[in-house]
Amino acid sequence: MFFKVKSSDEIFEILKTFAPVGEEIVSISDGLNRILSQDIVCGEDMPHFSRSSVDGYAVVAQDTYGASEALPAFLELKGEVIMGKESSVGVSSGNTVRISTGGMIPSGADAVVMIEYCHLVDERTIEITRSVAPLENIICRGDDCRKGSVLLEEGSMLRPQDIGLLAGQGVSRVFVYQKPKIAVISTGDEIIPIDQEPRPGQVRDVNSYTLSAFCAKEGGVPFNMGLCKDNFNDLREKIHRALEQCDSVWVSGGSSVGMRDMTLKVIESFDEAEILAHGIAVKPGKPTIVARIGHKSVIGLPGHVASAMVVAEVFLAPFLVWLQGGDRRCNDHHVYIDAKMERNVESASGSDEYIRVKLIKRDGKFYAEPLWGKSGLISTLVQAEGLVKIDRHVEGLYPGQDVRVMLFHLPGEENK
Amino acid sequence: MFFKVKSSDEIFEILKTFAPVGEEIVSISDGLNRILSQDIVCGEDMPHFSRSSVDGYAVVAQDTYGASEALPAFLELKGEVIMGKESSVGVSSGNTVRISTGGMIPSGADAVVMIEYCHLVDERTIEITRSVAPLENIICRGDDCRKGSVLLEEGSMLRPQDIGLLAGQGVSRVFVYQKPKIAVISTGDEIIPIDQEPRPGQVRDVNSYTLSAFCAKEGGVPFNMGLCKDNFNDLREKIHRALEQCDSVWVSGGSSVGMRDMTLKVIESFDEAEILAHGIAVKPGKPTIVARIGHKSVIGLPGHVASAMVVAEVFLAPFLVWLQGGDRRCNDHHVYIDAKMERNVESASGSDEYIRVKLIKRDGKFYAEPLWGKSGLISTLVQAEGLVKIDRHVEGLYPGQDVRVMLFHLPGEENK
Repeated sequence: MFFKVKSSDEIFEILKTFAPVGEEIVSISDGLNRILSQDIVCGEDMPHFSRSSVDGYAVVAQDTYGASEALPAFLELKGEVIMGKESSVGVSSGNTVRISTGGMIPSGADAVVMIEYCHLVDERTIEITRSVAPLENIICRGDDCRKGSVLLEEGSMLRPQDIGLLAGQGVSRVFVYQKPKIAVISTGDEIIPIDQEPRPGQVRDVNSYTLSAFCAKEGGVPFNMGLCKDNFNDLREKIHRALEQCDSVWVSGGSSVGMRDMTLKVIESFDEAEILAHGIAVKPGKPTIVARIGHKSVIGLPGHVASAMVVAEVFLAPFLVWLQGGDRRCNDHHVYIDAKMERNVESASGSDEYIRVKLIKRDGKFYAEPLWGKSGLISTLVQAEGLVKIDRHVEGLYPGQDVRVMLFHLPGEENK
Repeated sequence: MFFKVKSSDEIFEILKTFAPVGEEIVSISDGLNRILSQDIVCGEDMPHFSRSSVDGYAVVAQDTYGASEALPAFLELKGEVIMGKESSVGVSSGNTVRISTGGMIPSGADAVVMIEYCHLVDERTIEITRSVAPLENIICRGDDCRKGSVLLEEGSMLRPQDIGLLAGQGVSRVFVYQKPKIAVISTGDEIIPIDQEPRPGQVRDVNSYTLSAFCAKEGGVPFNMGLCKDNFNDLREKIHRALEQCDSVWVSGGSSVGMRDMTLKVIESFDEAEILAHGIAVKPGKPTIVARIGHKSVIGLPGHVASAMVVAEVFLAPFLVWLQGGDRRCNDHHVYIDAKMERNVESASGSDEYIRVKLIKRDGKFYAEPLWGKSGLISTLVQAEGLVKIDRHVEGLYPGQDVRVMLFHLPGEENK
């Protein structure tokens, strides 16, 4: 077989050849973190009438010019704007109408004086001790958005305020990209379901659970397809079913040479199958397979959980955003924190190396302490707060060197 | 009424007087981002047998000492370890057994030689060209975790790898804190449901949707209680029902003086009600109410959506984590990015001021461009990527000044 070890950059390019998943319609109440598949155009000016932004009195601005504590202006009180209604009385020179925040500006008025600068002299007379400019304290029709403008672009991930804007426009449902359905298959004769008691030589299934949760965290919908023995027909049948139901198939396991070869052979046995990468120049994570069957991606992940997680964090997190149409540059949505290396790390692998680190805070600075441990261990991942990349062109990191830590989770204490 | 404007720090202290919500049991498949309410103790050594971390040959390490390309060691091949089974043959000096990654180390062996350094001379003889030290390429029983040790502490938010560790231990269900149930009530005579066509003076309900999505984003379960007219009995009835169903009640609206006073009066009409804060020294967001009714919190938020969002981001995001038992220090889980101010901003409010900013990238650096706009507008929040705090002790920010931008969302392009 042709030797297809690829660089990280080549892998990103390969992943970008897969098309985003289809669209669906969701209620905006379910829209949080979903990615728009169409531009949203403003259907009506917002607000659709001019509103007061303060509690006070609607006036003709010119009536207040020169008004001060020493020389107040006096205006005749004609009434009050009722919230949610058009005012039945207008304002003209010499008179005023009481208005609350959000109230509709009465006809004739072009400014609002804040209540702090107004005093009721008698039941018909208001004393004004400050001047206002035209449009002061008014939100004009269309100030928030104008009919015909693009409110939100295709590819935007909806945040709470974006959903609020849609609500304000009366848009209750939107077209978004579907959440990619990811089939997770865990292979290996030694793997047993987690509710069983392992016999000597057997271990419980760590990878399905880790990868399914990872997939959900990044906006996918995991389909845990369960365990698969080291058997050509079983694996082929599972992948076949997975391709029917899901947008992408992630097979983990097959760390042994025999099993790796079998996963490759199973993929190649499908019509329209193409192995796009067999091996990535990253450490850990080298024995990764990227393949295409029809128009769907099949990813063969290392069996060692720490290796699988590095590949998932580095390549599959942006891939999931990409599949959701989210970022056409296949960008990095990780959160980073700056730290200094706590001790030296040698790296002469010729690959981009990712080391697991724990953060230590000392004198207001963060230090990244490398966590050593074989990639078959999960505890080092649990102790780790993130990954530090050692570029393939450098030979290691020295103590005190500035590094960026790719965090596994949102910052808590680290952030202070 | 006693004037209860509080500083930001005082508000955090007040919010920390509310107890976390109760526990529940969830399947680990639903455990992502949930917060453990109990320590998880390791029930059995993991792995519970010694495993090979490579493909190769299990040996007595001493047999390989001095082995090299020039002077290989020769061992008799006795068989192969079957994955998932205890080996039927052991290893003793002078012989070896084939083993795959993850296979159980046969009795008598104390190291594994990687397959790259082993050659089959004939069907019974293996040539070894490299020496191994005792325990080399072996993951020993208990290397991942030891029975009785604390695997994950109460208060930890579950990440994919934490769920993987639980799976490996056969822990399929865990005790976590419930997701706080938050009642969201939007008040105001001018507010109408989003599926209705507003008449002059009316606007659609932006706040319920914004705050409900915000709540979901931070791990809560929003109960959108719908709209409430500016009416004492209606609001009292809605808050009464909300207190029966939810852990905290958020009332937004009442921007007008009359409505604000009414919300206070409604809260005070309950038995065991206590107004803990009436006003926070932040801008925007000053007219915020924090109250306790029984042991539950009632938060009165400003009606202006930008003001409500600032209060939510700064105070209610950590409060939601706190209610989930997540961070006993009521910490800040926001993601920050360093930037320089693009232009100057004056602030002489005497309050902590939060300005909305957009990020601009130039020459590899980020510049924070202030977005001006009345706090009744939602479009500035939609254009904004985050908030910059101006401490109450400073009089403003100057162009080029280093600031930290509290991001509204996970970094995408900003992060590159």
